[in-house]
Amino acid sequence: MSAEPFLFPYTVSLHDSDAAGIIFSANLFRICHEAYEAMMAELGFSIGYLLKHRPFGVPLVHLDGDFMQPSRVGDHVTIEVRIVEMNRSSYRVEYSLRTPDGTACARAATVHVVVETKTYKSIPIPEGFRAALSKHYLPE
Amino acid sequence: MSAEPFLFPYTVSLHDSDAAGIIFSANLFRICHEAYEAMMAELGFSIGYLLKHRPFGVPLVHLDGDFMQPSRVGDHVTIEVRIVEMNRSSYRVEYSLRTPDGTACARAATVHVVVETKTYKSIPIPEGFRAALSKHYLPE
Amino acid sequence: MSAEPFLFPYTVSLHDSDAAGIIFSANLFRICHEAYEAMMAELGFSIGYLLKHRPFGVPLVHLDGDFMQPSRVGDHVTIEVRIVEMNRSSYRVEYSLRTPDGTACARAATVHVVVETKTYKSIPIPEGFRAALSKHYLPE
Amino acid sequence: MSAEPFLFPYTVSLHDSDAAGIIFSANLFRICHEAYEAMMAELGFSIGYLLKHRPFGVPLVHLDGDFMQPSRVGDHVTIEVRIVEMNRSSYRVEYSLRTPDGTACARAATVHVVVETKTYKSIPIPEGFRAALSKHYLPE
Repeated sequence: MSAEPFLFPYTVSLHDSDAAGIIFSANLFRICHEAYEAMMAELGFSIGYLLKHRPFGVPLVHLDGDFMQPSRVGDHVTIEVRIVEMNRSSYRVEYSLRTPDGTACARAATVHVVVETKTYKSIPIPEGFRAALSKHYLPE
Repeated sequence: MSAEPFLFPYTVSLHDSDAAGIIFSANLFRICHEAYEAMMAELGFSIGYLLKHRPFGVPLVHLDGDFMQPSRVGDHVTIEVRIVEMNRSSYRVEYSLRTPDGTACARAATVHVVVETKTYKSIPIPEGFRAALSKHYLPE
Repeated sequence: MSAEPFLFPYTVSLHDSDAAGIIFSANLFRICHEAYEAMMAELGFSIGYLLKHRPFGVPLVHLDGDFMQPSRVGDHVTIEVRIVEMNRSSYRVEYSLRTPDGTACARAATVHVVVETKTYKSIPIPEGFRAALSKHYLPE
Repeated sequence: MSAEPFLFPYTVSLHDSDAAGIIFSANLFRICHEAYEAMMAELGFSIGYLLKHRPFGVPLVHLDGDFMQPSRVGDHVTIEVRIVEMNRSSYRVEYSLRTPDGTACARAATVHVVVETKTYKSIPIPEGFRAALSKHYLPE
C-alpha cells in the first residue's frame, strides 16, 4: 500500500478572520492543528488518547508557515497533510491548503518530538507509531 | 414540513481546552458560533455571503451559557441548534451540546438583531430570511 | 476599608476582531477572563497557583453577556470587575467594559463554583478566599 | 540614538494554555502579534490606524517559531521585539520570549509586506514608516 496525504476539508469561520477581512495569521496554525488531530485520530493515536493514557507525548517544537493568497470567511479549503520527515525521535508534518480549483493559498509545517511523559526527555519514535505515521509518509 | 433542530457534530480539539483539562469557557461560544455559521450556510444566508454582499447584518447582542458537565479533548458532541424566538427584528438561537449517550453537557444561547449594514439601525427581519429561519423554529 | 471594583485596562487587538470589523463575540469572554485572572492574582489566588497546588478549583458554570456598542481594533477600554454575589459555594462576577469617556460598551458575568479538586464536588468557599473576594464585593 | 529592542511584558493566561498544561502552539503567534501591535502603536502606525485610514497595509506573509521550554499559566515572560531585516517592501520581525531569569523559552519571527490597500500590490516601505521601524532595527 503506497502512502497518501491525509485530506482535511475546512470552511473558514468568522472567528478565524480578523478586521482585515482575512484569516488571522495565528489561526492558520490552529486550523492546521485541527487537521493534525484528525490525522492522529485516524492513525489510532488521538491526542485525547495520548493525554489520557500518556504512553508518550508529542510536543510541538517548531512551526513555520507562508501565506500565498488571502482566505476569507466561508471559503472552502482542503488541507493536505503529509509526514515529510521521520527521524529517530522527531517527525515533521507539512500542511498544504488548497482552494477548490487547486490553488495553494497557504502552507505550514510543524515538528514534533516524541518524549517520555514524565521526564519530557526525547525517546525513539515507538515502532507502532512509526508504522502508523508511514501511512502518510511522503518525504519531499 | 415541520421544523427540526439543525444538528452539528463536533469533536473537542486541543485548542478548545485549557490547562484545567476541559473546554475553556469562551470556546463554548466559538464552537456554538461554528454551528450557527453552518446553519446559516444551510439556510442560504451564509456569514460569508452577508459580509460580501451586505444585504443586511445580524450582529450578536447577547449570549449566555451553562456548563453542566466538563468536556475533554477528543470528546464527540452533537450540537442541536434551534431558533427559539423570532421577534420583529431579532431572533434567539438556542444550542444544546449532547454527548453520544444523549447527556446534555452544556447549553448556550445567542440573540441577533437584523440591521441595515450602513447605519447599523435595526430593521424588520426580511421575509425570505424569516422563512428560512422557520425551518429550525422551535419555540420553547 | 470599603470594597472597590478591580480595574483592568485593555486595548482591543487584531485577533479579538473578526471580518465584521468588531470584537468577535466569544472574545468578550476571553478578555473578561483575562481581567478575572488578573484580579485573582491580585487577591493571592492566581489561577496558576490553583492549577499547580490544587487547594480547590473554581470552575465556571455560567456566563452571560451583552454588547451595547461595537468595539474596534485599537480601542482602549477599562473593565470594571465586581463580585456581585457570594453564596455558600459559588460566586458571581460582573464585568463592565467602558470606553475612555465612560460609555458602557459591553457587560458580562461569570458564575464560579468552588470544588474539591479530586472529586469536583462543591465545597463551601474557604474563609481566606471569601475574605479576599470581599475586597471587590459590591452586591447590586 | 541607537536602536533598541521593544519590550513587551506578558503573563501567560488560562486561554493560552491547553490540556497538556502548556501554551498551545498557535497562541505563541497570537501573543507575539500582541507585542507587534503594541510596537506598531508606539511607532505611530497602530494597526487600528492602518485599518481605519488605509494609507497602506502590512499583511503577514510568513511566520516561524521554536519552543525551547514549556510556559505555563501565570508565567511571566518578556518579549523582546526587533526588526531584523528591512528590504525594499518587506521587513522581518524577530520575537524572543524570556523568563525573568533571562532564559529564552521561545522565539518567533514574522515577515510583513507593505502593500497598497486597494490593489494589495507590494510598494516600497514609505520613508516615514521606515524611519519609525529603524528605532528597533537590529539586524542579526
